[in-house]
Amino acid sequence: MKRRTLLSVTAKRSTVLVIAKRSTLLLAALLPLPALGQKAVAVAPGQVAQEVRDYRKSNEERIVRELREFLAIPNTATDTPNIQKNAARLMEMLEARGIETHPLSIAGRGPVIFGKLTTPEATRTVIFYAHYDGQPVDAAAWTDGKPFEPALRTKAIEAGGKRIPFPEGAGPGAAHYNDEWRIYARSASDDKAPIVALLAALDALRAKRIALGVNLKVVLDGEEEAGSPNLERTLQAHRNLLGGDVLLVADGPVDASGLPLIDFGNRGVVDVQVTVYGPARALHSGHYGNWAPNPALQMARLLASMKDEDGRVRVEGFYDDVTPLSATEKKAIEEMPANDAELMKELEFAVPEGGGKKLMELISEPSLNIRGLRSAYVGAESQNVVPEKAEASLDLRLVKNIEPKVQYERLLAHIRKQGYYVTDREPTKEERLKYPRVAMVTSSGGYAATRTPMDTAVARKLTEVVEGAAGKTVKMPTSGGSVPMYIFEELGLPVIGVPIVNHDNRQHTADENLRLGNLWRGMEIYGAVLAGLTW
Amino acid sequence: MKRRTLLSVTAKRSTVLVIAKRSTLLLAALLPLPALGQKAVAVAPGQVAQEVRDYRKSNEERIVRELREFLAIPNTATDTPNIQKNAARLMEMLEARGIETHPLSIAGRGPVIFGKLTTPEATRTVIFYAHYDGQPVDAAAWTDGKPFEPALRTKAIEAGGKRIPFPEGAGPGAAHYNDEWRIYARSASDDKAPIVALLAALDALRAKRIALGVNLKVVLDGEEEAGSPNLERTLQAHRNLLGGDVLLVADGPVDASGLPLIDFGNRGVVDVQVTVYGPARALHSGHYGNWAPNPALQMARLLASMKDEDGRVRVEGFYDDVTPLSATEKKAIEEMPANDAELMKELEFAVPEGGGKKLMELISEPSLNIRGLRSAYVGAESQNVVPEKAEASLDLRLVKNIEPKVQYERLLAHIRKQGYYVTDREPTKEERLKYPRVAMVTSSGGYAATRTPMDTAVARKLTEVVEGAAGKTVKMPTSGGSVPMYIFEELGLPVIGVPIVNHDNRQHTADENLRLGNLWRGMEIYGAVLAGLTW
Repeated sequence: MKRRTLLSVTAKRSTVLVIAKRSTLLLAALLPLPALGQKAVAVAPGQVAQEVRDYRKSNEERIVRELREFLAIPNTATDTPNIQKNAARLMEMLEARGIETHPLSIAGRGPVIFGKLTTPEATRTVIFYAHYDGQPVDAAAWTDGKPFEPALRTKAIEAGGKRIPFPEGAGPGAAHYNDEWRIYARSASDDKAPIVALLAALDALRAKRIALGVNLKVVLDGEEEAGSPNLERTLQAHRNLLGGDVLLVADGPVDASGLPLIDFGNRGVVDVQVTVYGPARALHSGHYGNWAPNPALQMARLLASMKDEDGRVRVEGFYDDVTPLSATEKKAIEEMPANDAELMKELEFAVPEGGGKKLMELISEPSLNIRGLRSAYVGAESQNVVPEKAEASLDLRLVKNIEPKVQYERLLAHIRKQGYYVTDREPTKEERLKYPRVAMVTSSGGYAATRTPMDTAVARKLTEVVEGAAGKTVKMPTSGGSVPMYIFEELGLPVIGVPIVNHDNRQHTADENLRLGNLWRGMEIYGAVLAGLTW
Repeated sequence: MKRRTLLSVTAKRSTVLVIAKRSTLLLAALLPLPALGQKAVAVAPGQVAQEVRDYRKSNEERIVRELREFLAIPNTATDTPNIQKNAARLMEMLEARGIETHPLSIAGRGPVIFGKLTTPEATRTVIFYAHYDGQPVDAAAWTDGKPFEPALRTKAIEAGGKRIPFPEGAGPGAAHYNDEWRIYARSASDDKAPIVALLAALDALRAKRIALGVNLKVVLDGEEEAGSPNLERTLQAHRNLLGGDVLLVADGPVDASGLPLIDFGNRGVVDVQVTVYGPARALHSGHYGNWAPNPALQMARLLASMKDEDGRVRVEGFYDDVTPLSATEKKAIEEMPANDAELMKELEFAVPEGGGKKLMELISEPSLNIRGLRSAYVGAESQNVVPEKAEASLDLRLVKNIEPKVQYERLLAHIRKQGYYVTDREPTKEERLKYPRVAMVTSSGGYAATRTPMDTAVARKLTEVVEGAAGKTVKMPTSGGSVPMYIFEELGLPVIGVPIVNHDNRQHTADENLRLGNLWRGMEIYGAVLAGLTW
């Protein structure tokens, strides 16, 4: 039945997709299938990395082409036709590798793609989580104006990277790509590249006849950037598929130093939309200004009330439930490279928030961020009005042990304490006339943080494998970003992040990009994990 | 030469314009020319109003058609081709009445249209000022989506007004328009209606053979909503044209009570654009939030610092130079209808700013208004980022005796006092790395307020004429709005406002509209002024 679903989806494929499928199927036919003729002896991670690199140097053009074609399919989670095209393409990519693939359907959205590859004699099952949707785009803000037409540049745009054509017709042995080159497209880093790296690593192991040491499962989310509203329900309905020993998260960037990163948790997140109200219609600012209440000023005061000068959140109870870091975790943070000063220079600011704490310390704390602000118009579009409303969008990041709903309620209480009547829908005329200050506050819900202890057997072995493949790593008790990994934690899986993409990838904003050297090293790390993560 | 300019402009007219010109020219031919066969005896203002009303009732369809066709020409000051079409149409409208017309050209913008109609034996010259440009539009925010396709409604949209077709083919004696009906279009009130009312009043006097009592001049600005950056220079270059006894400003709304209004001054205005900076590029809020400085939070704090809880501006010296109101002016304010409570109900808010002062008191004070705010995205477009910048747009309103430049400098000093390095251009990387807080602040300049004493002969006579024509009036020492009348004050002309349009016209924002009853009464007031403003 699952097969039938797939066929009905892929039947609508465009010509480009058909060609792509043919080429990847051809590849699968050329490569040995699992357990057929592979070396059964364990290969050391450093050796695996070397063999993957050797394979990659002869196959760069093909690997990049697979990524480019994947990036060319627009992937905002709410764009139903396109997100389903992404899903169909992804299933072809998995099946071309002989991975048993099932789309776990979600009405009107892209399915969760589940894949499974069994390794005879393997005792451990590793589940890779990644997502194939991307953040919404504002095409006008992109340098090339086209987030879904991947562009190649000689380095980052900020560093003066020039656009160059993708090299064509690379033969075996010809390495046409420079490590510093970057591919610009939505999801180039977040999060399509890790999927392509994993599959290319699998191709490399097979080509080099290196046996897989684990059973592999993949869970590929199509709604992560939309807050994964259906993931929990979907996985709960298919929890029988999710037996395994560890969940590896292939999302997020490596350390700003450029060193590979292993993170042992993610922060949770709650999104918040706040609207405050002025007069029922925008008014002439000369005739009514300084009398009609200005909602932009109210919003400014409300937001200013939320944090102190050091960036400490002033919402009561905001830091109450935080689970303190263990000694191992504190030590890991101390050992992390301190490149804050360099980063500040790159990002062109003189003083950070946080009252003197390091970025990595701050990431272990809950945070409140203003991610957007709007009231009437600015610049050339300005009008002389008292605006009718002001809107702000916030994200609250949560650390281990903070309940999303509880943190959200604390924020609501804070807004009430500033004198606001709070409602979760557009206020009525009666409410507006009754209360001096009215705020509509809504949230799509969010989810909790996860954190896996760093001294478990799987954590120690994973560290050994990654360091064997890629040298020194940065070990982070928790990543600053959010992926809904609590779902897997609740299924009993330890969750560990093994991100591969460059830290300056501009994920979530315009000009998102992937540094190719990171893709190559990511293949080597994932290859070593597939070959040797046994404990 | 001026004539030649006009012909070259009007040669490009569309078919619609040609038909319009033919009909208005026909009208001019039917009407007696100035000083030909008119009654030479003075007619009392009440009688003039009655005769104008009688004329209007037989000509509503034609008057409305002239306005509609004028409104159909998009009129943002910076939209050069269209603003010049407006100017060409306006010159046709004036010349059709036998008014000697000169475009005072401004490169790349709409000209100031100067017109002159001499009345033999008149001793006084009245100059009407109005503007034919409108505020920029955001078409998507308009109920009908088309700010330049005038629509007729049975009443205000907020009051449930239904859209109806414009009545066609009205014959003499048939009054097809209800006073409560409204025309929706950009500049329906601000400021094309007063121009049409003045010309229709002139038509009425001629049709009723009532002699003009004054020489008439008109100055019609094509850049008022853009701050009239070229008006002063243009008028200085043609100051020989501007001899006269009083300048009447035909801009702004009547009192919220619905009573006609006479205002004896306008506030000045300074626009201010402020940008503050976060990281050089938008960053992932999970990985960098609460460490990278958030510009939206900085902006919130900066704006919150500018006013206290009562709406009193906290910029040092902000109220220093205010010329106190005279006893007459204070009395006038006391006598103004106190409809604040009713207005608040209509505008759906519970508590005004201003620490308990009445709207009309506040309008005699300088003000600071946040007219727009923007940083990254809100709502469905939100992205999980630390934004790279936050922008605010402010307008400062000035009262008599405050220098625009001085008030602007006070604001700059306030921003510096909040810890900002202030620059008037995009900051360099070096500046961003050197200063903890950086703000780019710019202004297009603005202009000063004007105020004419209420006890001069011309002020008293104008009040008598308007009250004779329209009954009780509201007398306002200064209007809250801004028109660059200081230019005329500097030319030695007393400046008095005689606005006619409804107070709830939504000028400067979406769904701007004109209540037809206000257009009709405006014709009567302007007719009485043209016939009898002698002192």
